[in-house]
Amino acid sequence: MEKLKEYVSVKHEDHFYHQGAVELLIFNFLLILTILTIWLFKNHRFRFLHETGGAMLYGLVMGLIIRYVTKSADVESGTVYECEKLKSGPSTLLINITNQVYEYQYKREISHHNVNGHQGNTMLQKMTFDPSIFFNILLPPIIFHAGYSLKKRHFFRNLGSILTYAFLGTAISCIVIGLIMYGFVKAMVHIGQLKQWEFHFTDCLFFGSLMSATDPVTVLAIFHELNVDTDLYTLLFGESVLNDAVAIVLTHSISIYSPKENPNAFDAAAFFQSVGNFLGIFAGSFAMGSSYAVVTALISFMHLTKFTKLCEFPMLETGLFFLLSWSAFLSAEAAGLTGIVAVLFCGVTQAHYTYNNLSVDSKMRTKQLFEFMNFLAENVIFCYMGLALFTFQNHIFNPLFIFGALVAVFVARASNIYPLSFLLNLGRKQKIPRNFQHMMMFSGLRGAIAFALAIRDTDSQPKQMMFTTALLVVFFTVWVCGGGTTAMLTWLQIRVGVDPDEDLKARAASQSAPNLDKNTTKAESAWLFRIWYGFDHKYLKPLLTHAGPPLTSTLPEWCSPVASILTSPRAYGDQLKDGDTVYIINNDELTENYESSAHIAVPVQDSTASTQATGKEDIQEGDLGLGGYKLQLQHTAGQAQNSLA
Amino acid sequence: MEKLKEYVSVKHEDHFYHQGAVELLIFNFLLILTILTIWLFKNHRFRFLHETGGAMLYGLVMGLIIRYVTKSADVESGTVYECEKLKSGPSTLLINITNQVYEYQYKREISHHNVNGHQGNTMLQKMTFDPSIFFNILLPPIIFHAGYSLKKRHFFRNLGSILTYAFLGTAISCIVIGLIMYGFVKAMVHIGQLKQWEFHFTDCLFFGSLMSATDPVTVLAIFHELNVDTDLYTLLFGESVLNDAVAIVLTHSISIYSPKENPNAFDAAAFFQSVGNFLGIFAGSFAMGSSYAVVTALISFMHLTKFTKLCEFPMLETGLFFLLSWSAFLSAEAAGLTGIVAVLFCGVTQAHYTYNNLSVDSKMRTKQLFEFMNFLAENVIFCYMGLALFTFQNHIFNPLFIFGALVAVFVARASNIYPLSFLLNLGRKQKIPRNFQHMMMFSGLRGAIAFALAIRDTDSQPKQMMFTTALLVVFFTVWVCGGGTTAMLTWLQIRVGVDPDEDLKARAASQSAPNLDKNTTKAESAWLFRIWYGFDHKYLKPLLTHAGPPLTSTLPEWCSPVASILTSPRAYGDQLKDGDTVYIINNDELTENYESSAHIAVPVQDSTASTQATGKEDIQEGDLGLGGYKLQLQHTAGQAQNSLA
Repeated sequence: MEKLKEYVSVKHEDHFYHQGAVELLIFNFLLILTILTIWLFKNHRFRFLHETGGAMLYGLVMGLIIRYVTKSADVESGTVYECEKLKSGPSTLLINITNQVYEYQYKREISHHNVNGHQGNTMLQKMTFDPSIFFNILLPPIIFHAGYSLKKRHFFRNLGSILTYAFLGTAISCIVIGLIMYGFVKAMVHIGQLKQWEFHFTDCLFFGSLMSATDPVTVLAIFHELNVDTDLYTLLFGESVLNDAVAIVLTHSISIYSPKENPNAFDAAAFFQSVGNFLGIFAGSFAMGSSYAVVTALISFMHLTKFTKLCEFPMLETGLFFLLSWSAFLSAEAAGLTGIVAVLFCGVTQAHYTYNNLSVDSKMRTKQLFEFMNFLAENVIFCYMGLALFTFQNHIFNPLFIFGALVAVFVARASNIYPLSFLLNLGRKQKIPRNFQHMMMFSGLRGAIAFALAIRDTDSQPKQMMFTTALLVVFFTVWVCGGGTTAMLTWLQIRVGVDPDEDLKARAASQSAPNLDKNTTKAESAWLFRIWYGFDHKYLKPLLTHAGPPLTSTLPEWCSPVASILTSPRAYGDQLKDGDTVYIINNDELTENYESSAHIAVPVQDSTASTQATGKEDIQEGDLGLGGYKLQLQHTAGQAQNSLA
Repeated sequence: MEKLKEYVSVKHEDHFYHQGAVELLIFNFLLILTILTIWLFKNHRFRFLHETGGAMLYGLVMGLIIRYVTKSADVESGTVYECEKLKSGPSTLLINITNQVYEYQYKREISHHNVNGHQGNTMLQKMTFDPSIFFNILLPPIIFHAGYSLKKRHFFRNLGSILTYAFLGTAISCIVIGLIMYGFVKAMVHIGQLKQWEFHFTDCLFFGSLMSATDPVTVLAIFHELNVDTDLYTLLFGESVLNDAVAIVLTHSISIYSPKENPNAFDAAAFFQSVGNFLGIFAGSFAMGSSYAVVTALISFMHLTKFTKLCEFPMLETGLFFLLSWSAFLSAEAAGLTGIVAVLFCGVTQAHYTYNNLSVDSKMRTKQLFEFMNFLAENVIFCYMGLALFTFQNHIFNPLFIFGALVAVFVARASNIYPLSFLLNLGRKQKIPRNFQHMMMFSGLRGAIAFALAIRDTDSQPKQMMFTTALLVVFFTVWVCGGGTTAMLTWLQIRVGVDPDEDLKARAASQSAPNLDKNTTKAESAWLFRIWYGFDHKYLKPLLTHAGPPLTSTLPEWCSPVASILTSPRAYGDQLKDGDTVYIINNDELTENYESSAHIAVPVQDSTASTQATGKEDIQEGDLGLGGYKLQLQHTAGQAQNSLA
């Protein structure tokens, strides 16, 4: 008897193993299908449906099949059992059922109205995976890859504008969506679709903040393929990357904002606490992410001193790089900060410092590894979004709310892009033209982050309505805006087929021409940036990488013993190498990268003069779009001519 | 009030997120520490502690810290609650606790005596992750990598011996361990340490089968580093890879074996059913794994016809390769077969066919990706093994049982290696020398598979005792045998610093010398292999890859219309390329691979003659260690001389 029971238990367990396999198999199947479709589309240069749109479509179909084909057994799962002895939900529950003890693990708290939703079949439940998987497993590689593959040269040239769109724009977007939604909610209460107490203004703001995370992955893929104007690409890419970070922290801050008395009244103290939270979390995450990257840079840098050589073991190097980057995420999460923000800045810092120290093999390995993880994670998320429409069991479809959200999203995008572009154009030398603004307006797609933020909490009815609505907004924007990108580009007459490096040279040439207006507003901001740049170039880069001038030449005289210990022997010979750090990680091919570094390694007669020139050119790249470098630039150009002569 | 509760719930959830982050962070930290240690050791050429041994050690220390430093809160988790209304354990349980519904997920069934073990702290529970993670996530990449990186040339030369060791040897090992353990169990019952009914002979056999999975990862790493004799390396590697597969299926079959009446009596019907199960599961998994690989090969081959070119999108190619290989595993699991066996043969087949079709970029990407995943998974498992000694809460340490297991493991290894080597030497031209046999005996380390099989079921007391014992045997063998490998190599005077390719050439030269004895026993087995080889070379390779002769030349006349459609245009020009398929995936560097293929791409005057020569040489590699190719070989050698003249 004892024996028999044991076998039954083994078989029971086996059944569970196979269940896991079936679910994973479904995802694998969807991804394989997506890849085959992309392949077909790429072959036919068919750009109306991007891979993510395709993944979503397949997910949708599969969700439909799972929902209506699989049996809805397991009647008992809808029943609620009483347990008077318990005071709160322990993490593990041991239950004695017909003289056999079973272990149950805490999953979540559910509202009473959701209990009926659980009568569904187990297959649907199995396909609905834990939201924490999004945050801990799927999002980090995507965000890290975005940071790691950031084209720094173009990014810094537009840094001012990008920061404005990301911070100010997201705040505007959040508030506008919140206000419009509040209006719709009021209307819904008026016509009796909602009860007053269900939906507060903070809930609307919460919705606004999660819907402010744009994810134009579809648009960017098409831009990349068609080589759209680099400035437009950089503005959109930079904005979307940073605005994800801002939206996540904003959502977190709003969910913490809890006014003491009336939830609809404005509570100044709570508001400032939220603002403080926002700033604290953002700064903390930033610090956490970059410090991990600095540690990685230091470890990978150590191989230059006589101690040991990590770069001779590319596997260890890659492993360390991967683990430390992931630890940045996990540490931030464990410390109550935002892991996504940490991993983003970790990626940027890794690309800035560590990348220079890696062996050629590891450069390629890390790049390909993160590219691959990004590709998989992205497609898994979009597949899952498709699936969720039918497999998620607590949807609340409210047509008015959905319509309101669509209106709000577009109005908010417009009140983000147009006014800010106008303001930015006041300060920018290189104006953002009208058609770029329209294109940016059109590219306000919602994607993975909005979905992940919405699915994180689906316990209460308002949250479920938000989740359903967010999902539909994602569908709409990805299919409609994503599908129309190529048509829109043609219609707006935006130039395509631009070589980013050629573009930059042409720009630099036209800028160094004498007929430029001087714009010295916000000079102190540029001054701040210049100080940072100088500090980075003189001290941080030589300390953390083997690019830049040797520390012995940048540190004061009395530091020379320390400096000579810290300076890598390669730095003396490789002063010119600094130039290629801005090229790093082209999305297209690695060969270009090698070519450029090979190109730069050519010996130059007057090394001092050219080092100076390189440094100045770098500053020009980090232009911030605020002007103020005219004089210096002309000076550099003059100097370059001198050195050429 | 409603609001407040919601916030509490959000915070509660947040707490859960952070918990997950902390656990993952602990693993990351251990892995980072391991990597840094390996780096240090590699630098000092310190070979007494391999990375896996180090990972285990760090895991052990961390487990100790977690166990005795963290608080053991959560008193409620030890209490068992009654639930009369339920008849069986549903997968999801909804429980009403103080007017709030909580959702609990089924985890497992536990025996009454284990209930007390659950009073421990939550941290320990969190660190003990689900055994299915081993089987679904961690093991597949390791096993796939083993199959994918198999050096086919050397493997096939020793195929006969490897199969003998793997199938016959594992069976012997299983039975010997089972018998010895049964003796010890009887003794323990006699002195009153065990109750009679707890431990049946089938349990002993179960333990025998799981302890038969050897995992000499430490030894092989050292062999690889020191370039130990290729035959020894191949024998050990091949044996350990296949014997894992055999042991897994054997364990499964034994756990299914359930005699009707007395569990100690021999039940012929049940026994043959188990044997049938074993064969069925093994064959089924083999078929599943290889068919997925064939599908991958076909898809990747399609780019040669005019349809589309997958190889132009290395990311898609790599993604498809990865997903289809993983699907082989998952499909086998879902079909009730053994995923590990499927993924092993999938890896072998992928290397044999698909690898030839991949673009240069994808060849490198897939190789590096699986290498990296293998590296990480291996170290995670060994870290976890170290952790498990202190964090697992239901250990049963029985000194007599542990001592018995150590004795049994070594006796079983001896009765596997020595008699089988003696028998094999009767048939082998190239004898397995005494010192090789001793080294193989010494390399019977236990590792990941034995651990994973043991942790899969730890519900009953016998199973817990087995798990604890298996864990300690792993520790002992990895640290003692693994640490002593270098000393043992010196002591047994086994030659190191062998270049595998040079070795093979020298071997071939000595074999083609006329003073060789002829050995025609088991000619039919060789004949069978030759037929398979011919079929593979003539039909499968041209059909699935662009290596081998064009189908138009191998298929009969009347098939020519079909053949010309199926033959890749490259096959006509690349007839010589077949030669390099046996080189594929050197563990050391890829450059060699490129060099060899570049070398082969050199045009040869008389293409027909040299194609023939290549084909013959291939057969010689697939020698099976059974002789019977002497005449042909001499013929080939003569022909080669002719074509050179």
